Amino acid sequence: MIDMNDRSLRQVTVGLGGPANGLVREDRFDITAASEVMAILVLASDYADLRKRLGEIVVGTSTEGNPVKASEIGGAGAMALLLRQAFLPNLAQTLEGNPAFIHGGPFANIAHGNSSIIADRMALASADFVVTEAGFGSDMGAEKFMHIKAATSGKAPDCVVMNVTVRSMKLHGGAFGDRGGIRPDKATLEAENVSATVSGARTNLDRHIRNMAAFGIPVVVSINKFASDTDAEISAIRDAAHESGATSVCITEVHANGGEGGKDLAQAVVKAVQNHIASGRPFVPLFKPDVDVVEKATAIATRMYKANGISMTAKAKRELDRIRSWGYGNLPVCMAKTQYSFSHDASLLGAPTGFTVPIGEFRLNAGAGFIVAVLGNMMTMPGLPKRPAALDMDMDENGNLLGVFG
Amino acid sequence: MIDMNDRSLRQVTVGLGGPANGLVREDRFDITAASEVMAILVLASDYADLRKRLGEIVVGTSTEGNPVKASEIGGAGAMALLLRQAFLPNLAQTLEGNPAFIHGGPFANIAHGNSSIIADRMALASADFVVTEAGFGSDMGAEKFMHIKAATSGKAPDCVVMNVTVRSMKLHGGAFGDRGGIRPDKATLEAENVSATVSGARTNLDRHIRNMAAFGIPVVVSINKFASDTDAEISAIRDAAHESGATSVCITEVHANGGEGGKDLAQAVVKAVQNHIASGRPFVPLFKPDVDVVEKATAIATRMYKANGISMTAKAKRELDRIRSWGYGNLPVCMAKTQYSFSHDASLLGAPTGFTVPIGEFRLNAGAGFIVAVLGNMMTMPGLPKRPAALDMDMDENGNLLGVFG
Amino acid sequence: MIDMNDRSLRQVTVGLGGPANGLVREDRFDITAASEVMAILVLASDYADLRKRLGEIVVGTSTEGNPVKASEIGGAGAMALLLRQAFLPNLAQTLEGNPAFIHGGPFANIAHGNSSIIADRMALASADFVVTEAGFGSDMGAEKFMHIKAATSGKAPDCVVMNVTVRSMKLHGGAFGDRGGIRPDKATLEAENVSATVSGARTNLDRHIRNMAAFGIPVVVSINKFASDTDAEISAIRDAAHESGATSVCITEVHANGGEGGKDLAQAVVKAVQNHIASGRPFVPLFKPDVDVVEKATAIATRMYKANGISMTAKAKRELDRIRSWGYGNLPVCMAKTQYSFSHDASLLGAPTGFTVPIGEFRLNAGAGFIVAVLGNMMTMPGLPKRPAALDMDMDENGNLLGVFG
Amino acid sequence: MIDMNDRSLRQVTVGLGGPANGLVREDRFDITAASEVMAILVLASDYADLRKRLGEIVVGTSTEGNPVKASEIGGAGAMALLLRQAFLPNLAQTLEGNPAFIHGGPFANIAHGNSSIIADRMALASADFVVTEAGFGSDMGAEKFMHIKAATSGKAPDCVVMNVTVRSMKLHGGAFGDRGGIRPDKATLEAENVSATVSGARTNLDRHIRNMAAFGIPVVVSINKFASDTDAEISAIRDAAHESGATSVCITEVHANGGEGGKDLAQAVVKAVQNHIASGRPFVPLFKPDVDVVEKATAIATRMYKANGISMTAKAKRELDRIRSWGYGNLPVCMAKTQYSFSHDASLLGAPTGFTVPIGEFRLNAGAGFIVAVLGNMMTMPGLPKRPAALDMDMDENGNLLGVFG
Repeated sequence: MIDMNDRSLRQVTVGLGGPANGLVREDRFDITAASEVMAILVLASDYADLRKRLGEIVVGTSTEGNPVKASEIGGAGAMALLLRQAFLPNLAQTLEGNPAFIHGGPFANIAHGNSSIIADRMALASADFVVTEAGFGSDMGAEKFMHIKAATSGKAPDCVVMNVTVRSMKLHGGAFGDRGGIRPDKATLEAENVSATVSGARTNLDRHIRNMAAFGIPVVVSINKFASDTDAEISAIRDAAHESGATSVCITEVHANGGEGGKDLAQAVVKAVQNHIASGRPFVPLFKPDVDVVEKATAIATRMYKANGISMTAKAKRELDRIRSWGYGNLPVCMAKTQYSFSHDASLLGAPTGFTVPIGEFRLNAGAGFIVAVLGNMMTMPGLPKRPAALDMDMDENGNLLGVFG
Repeated sequence: MIDMNDRSLRQVTVGLGGPANGLVREDRFDITAASEVMAILVLASDYADLRKRLGEIVVGTSTEGNPVKASEIGGAGAMALLLRQAFLPNLAQTLEGNPAFIHGGPFANIAHGNSSIIADRMALASADFVVTEAGFGSDMGAEKFMHIKAATSGKAPDCVVMNVTVRSMKLHGGAFGDRGGIRPDKATLEAENVSATVSGARTNLDRHIRNMAAFGIPVVVSINKFASDTDAEISAIRDAAHESGATSVCITEVHANGGEGGKDLAQAVVKAVQNHIASGRPFVPLFKPDVDVVEKATAIATRMYKANGISMTAKAKRELDRIRSWGYGNLPVCMAKTQYSFSHDASLLGAPTGFTVPIGEFRLNAGAGFIVAVLGNMMTMPGLPKRPAALDMDMDENGNLLGVFG
Repeated sequence: MIDMNDRSLRQVTVGLGGPANGLVREDRFDITAASEVMAILVLASDYADLRKRLGEIVVGTSTEGNPVKASEIGGAGAMALLLRQAFLPNLAQTLEGNPAFIHGGPFANIAHGNSSIIADRMALASADFVVTEAGFGSDMGAEKFMHIKAATSGKAPDCVVMNVTVRSMKLHGGAFGDRGGIRPDKATLEAENVSATVSGARTNLDRHIRNMAAFGIPVVVSINKFASDTDAEISAIRDAAHESGATSVCITEVHANGGEGGKDLAQAVVKAVQNHIASGRPFVPLFKPDVDVVEKATAIATRMYKANGISMTAKAKRELDRIRSWGYGNLPVCMAKTQYSFSHDASLLGAPTGFTVPIGEFRLNAGAGFIVAVLGNMMTMPGLPKRPAALDMDMDENGNLLGVFG
Repeated sequence: MIDMNDRSLRQVTVGLGGPANGLVREDRFDITAASEVMAILVLASDYADLRKRLGEIVVGTSTEGNPVKASEIGGAGAMALLLRQAFLPNLAQTLEGNPAFIHGGPFANIAHGNSSIIADRMALASADFVVTEAGFGSDMGAEKFMHIKAATSGKAPDCVVMNVTVRSMKLHGGAFGDRGGIRPDKATLEAENVSATVSGARTNLDRHIRNMAAFGIPVVVSINKFASDTDAEISAIRDAAHESGATSVCITEVHANGGEGGKDLAQAVVKAVQNHIASGRPFVPLFKPDVDVVEKATAIATRMYKANGISMTAKAKRELDRIRSWGYGNLPVCMAKTQYSFSHDASLLGAPTGFTVPIGEFRLNAGAGFIVAVLGNMMTMPGLPKRPAALDMDMDENGNLLGVFG
């Protein structure tokens, strides 16, 4: 693991230069955010659990084909010790002085993408309502919240707050062409386009709302309003969201107006949570926790992504056989997947159907307690943009930063 | 560069897996301490110099065979910016409350191995006497102080304090066999062995003293006394040191008695410095700063290490040709070499002669302003000990460290 | 290309060890039978065509992204010269003294798998009937005969002779489990199993006959009779073949009885050819020669293999884009595929449906004049059997061979 | 081993792409001429010995660090069988109809460089005098004849015929600059240069003659006369050769005049052999056959090459330790070395002294029965010339060769 995006480290041969340098082998670097150690840090309940999970990491295979764990090579203690401080959540504050933990990260494409369980617990111990982030769209971080984080912590959410913008609806409605991830110019972004907004909301947002509602939890849609958004566009989203079954829909202007701009949303969430608790409705995951990983992946693919099914490469099948033979076949699955589409293909916008989800690899994270399924060409060592941001950064002779902010 | 000793990263092939992952190439990882960026940090005079030097790093070769600098690919500013805080020396204090800067490191085997110039300058601006460290024996950090650091800062030392222990003299006198770096057991280490002490002092210490005295600077020998050292052993060193021309010889017991244990040494240094300044003796490096790197390396090899001369591999010659053709042939040379012997061979103890110093590689550090000559098999990515220290480390369920201290 | 099966050469990094050894790059070895040069040898019409095709081989890409041909780097002449003798067909004779050319090979899985055009032409110039081999099942060599060899030579066959054995029908009828390529023991192979024979004939043989008949050519089925075959098994195949539309069905015992054992077949072929020529029925390939390679591959996959369609990896798409941009997009396609199934998956016996054919790679053979589509995990550098045949071979002290024959 | 000069195969990583492709490892290709199998072919006495030696090849190391032989993995028999025909010497004839065996090759730089023992034996069985070739200068093939081939066959030569040309003496006399291996233009080659001829003969030829004479064998010098050679040049060589102790000196014009042109030489050889046999002088190798390989290499380096001694890289020492621990330390040594100089450095012409011979690697050829010592940068996979000869070769449309001869 290395904390730098360098695509030339995606696939490497190490140990060259003679036996003193170890065995020659093919390997890869991942960025730290995709590491099993990071996942353990955010899923562990306390120091003892942290150390135990680190010891459960499968670091290799014995010559007899059995898993070799970190604890078996004496690595658990030292790793735990190195993470002792990092395991304590970082307490920060908002500009208005409200406390906030920043602990664990939202990379829900290459990791499970949720804030740490220990931070949530500390927050729950001292506040009535805790808002925690699940990265990217609901098919990404929220799905993993439901099937990995909640399964680990035993604490399901009482409400889903789904944040949506006019421009994301335009994107999924086709206003910017057929390719996710490419940023149009400002004028195109901001130009009113009601029909694309409608189209995006009635396909993409609709599926997000219905998927989340199926877990048995209220879904409050928060429209994150930008200055350039028009009333017609906002209305289009509001109407669509209601029609898709949103519990309530609010306009949010936190970026412009601070806490005041989120008041409606806060009240809607409080109400939704109170009603939900009163209703006694159960939390309904897509599958029982102890079914096979392929059943889990298939359920997520067909019921959330609306794929026809999954396919597996020979490599994935081989790894699956090994994982099952070691007794890990029923762990949760963490789908490593593009954040730009419900599918594995970043170019399929809106609410695509008719595709098959290709699983290229399975990676066992026995310590974190899940199996990573790598979909399509998903990279766990991302590349940098074509024009590095570094080109705009500099320092003057007095040590002042240039080009970093704004 | 990576901050971890992993011998399997000494020689790697990167960029495998197709054109999206960059060009396939052979490369190596070094540990951070051996990095040119670290050397720049400790040699730069101010922010502007820091940025300029970073920009001068030669990061590759153009298709026409010319050097490509970091500044030419837009990398200087962002690197400078990342180092902005790191460039400020860390002020710490001793147990007795005296200020001390910790900034830059003593890895004088794989790097130039001296504390930072900026820290020394800040210290000199607020104290009458500044003590700064040069790592390992005088053939290592002190040689590099004289020819690299002093040449960069323009400030030569007014006194050399040479620290010596009875057990190091025993080692070089042959008490522990013929191999540096292997630690004998406690009983062997502590058993009185006057003849080995004499032998070590009259060969190894003698050469260190004479080498340093040749720079025209007083040499104060500090015998770092251990409880097990006998009077006869201490006397043996003292006599030998005087005979080799030490300006004065002191017993130091700072480890046992704190500042009080270093009083004699402090007074001896004050006196030596005052006499030296009064004498007006010039500082005399081994060579003029603008001679060719091979002349510099030969002078160090023959006059400090007492080798017959140097030899170069075909690879080293090729690199030398390129370095010269780019106009860098007259930079200072930083000898990457074992700390266990005056020679390149860790098994040659005492004051070896009759060997030829093999230069396996030259590496241009144009930003740091020197050329690294890698002697013999010196590794800039060290290995770990056979029994990892991590095996003794652990954390209990309350987060208490176990096995780290003591 | 190397004439040895060594799986460790399937994926290699070459050019390590410094610039004198060339550029570091990822590469692979293929066995000679899979080489484009071999394909050119068997498809070329004369010496001039041979030299021209060798020059058309695309050996790399220029820095501007254009194809670099062998002729552009001066390689065509020397290659042609090396192949001068090899281009002349080898004339052998059967045990009964009939002339036979052996020229080019039947590896219809990793190559186009047909005897050379020049040998066929020489045979046609001196005989009334020429029998030429197309390797493996009709989905392999015969498909490539129709779409590659016939398209190149301009000469379509006047009759298909489809050879079938009782045991292959048993295999496809499920008598030996669900896996192609694994040889059952002798007793199992020879035990009468009429139901499996019927099942294999009505699925697998049926599809072969119908596929071939669709080209507008008579299909004569030759049942290659073994001593252990029972009358019931033979009848089962005969009945099924007639029902599938075979022009005629013959029992052949050439292995046991020489030319006499093939008399019925020969007469049936003569009659079929005469009727065919008299009928004036046109030869009907699956597609027009100038359609895009994806259309060709899709037609073969859906109409011959009966797949749902094709899928392509990102790598295959990238290569396809490049091939099309260079103007080669309409070349014939050579499907590199397992010989054990109509599909890409060796375990799908009989007449499978419901699968999608995965194209993992496209390789341009511009000199041979086709594009290789590598299906699934098809290897162009095969492995050796688990127990090397070499273990049974030896030589005695007089130089006598041991263990080579029988 | 591969029969093609491709420098990008000098250092490779193989077995990439997953466990099905074998273990990832660093390896190299050598050209066939440098192979141990080739050496075995030319040193074996009969089929039984051939098979036994093939079985003795050390193909790897067991996990316990012991040698693994080809016979232990069942490889000896199949290898022997493949070489059965190749082991039989090829009988050719000269233009005048004299029989000649061509069997084994003269690559005395990267191999032991002598014709096969079996061919010599067959020749000796049917002729009174047998002339056999030892490749390159006497420090190359002839040294290896004395210490490897003769030690294996038990048959020392009765006469050394040393072939010399005027232009080689000019080269070593400095007429063409200081670099071996670079061909001057025709005019420079042919221009009379008596002083350079004298200088070359009195340094280079002198050392060759004295080295060979020290084995106790007559040395007949054959001056291979070219049309452009002047009498003064020829005389210079003749005088020098006599002074260095040549048994006799003959002018040879076989190239121009066939057998007639070699009559003087033949008669001189007959006489030298008869006198030698009559004298009963013993054959005197440089060392006893059972001394350690380092003693052998040192004797060759100091007494034939006139070096100060040898040096070894750490790699060579490591390999030496292993070779000795396996009990092979006393095998003959085969020096892989440049043919352009008595030293390891192609640029040292004439009769250089004052150098140390660097051994970079030892390679055990346990089946061939020797240890290869690789000197300096000697390559066992040569590169091709800068301008490939292939560029001048072609084939016309009738299959006629162009540019191959003349």
